[in-house]
Amino acid sequence: MERMSLDPEIAARLKRNPEGLVPAIAQQYDTGEVLMLAWMNDEALHRTLTTGRATYWSRSRQEFWVKGDTSGHVQHVKSVALDCDGDTLLVRVDQVGAACHTGERTCFDADVLA
Amino acid sequence: MERMSLDPEIAARLKRNPEGLVPAIAQQYDTGEVLMLAWMNDEALHRTLTTGRATYWSRSRQEFWVKGDTSGHVQHVKSVALDCDGDTLLVRVDQVGAACHTGERTCFDADVLA
Repeated sequence: MERMSLDPEIAARLKRNPEGLVPAIAQQYDTGEVLMLAWMNDEALHRTLTTGRATYWSRSRQEFWVKGDTSGHVQHVKSVALDCDGDTLLVRVDQVGAACHTGERTCFDADVLA
Repeated sequence: MERMSLDPEIAARLKRNPEGLVPAIAQQYDTGEVLMLAWMNDEALHRTLTTGRATYWSRSRQEFWVKGDTSGHVQHVKSVALDCDGDTLLVRVDQVGAACHTGERTCFDADVLA
């Protein structure tokens, strides 16, 4: 039977910020491009692990955000890793189209400081 | 004359969390490996941009952390980009040795969830 919520063994290792969120880095699995950073709560991580679609918690809208549901720019999940401190996720995806809402391929393309 | 603090035009674009910090993703510039995520305040970003050594703010020790000063595992900065929302940095570096304090090459090598 499919779990209805995040695996308790994973949940026990997660270190969340005061809002219950963990930063998730989305990376294109084959080219290595860092696409964007967004945030997940336990349920977003559970949905990401079980649906194969990268799913975040939108801090501005305060709702789940299945990447690509509006734009078509879906992220198909290839792997998910938790870092050594348990406070950051790395989500390797196959990004359809642009990752950034500006139309750029990644959210880091437009503003190079150095 | 070298600036003593972060360029005000950059500072004006930064969106910091309540602790005055911005997450910084460190990526190996040539292989694309995502090495780690750490945090910068304005001064850490200024030092990173001007010294060529990735410099973070350690939330646990509440002090500046010049990556590699203790371990020798220096990060030589190749480029720094700010994302579209102004709330995440991508720091491309040349990582000497292991990025992770556990001795792994990256902080995401040990705990693959899926």
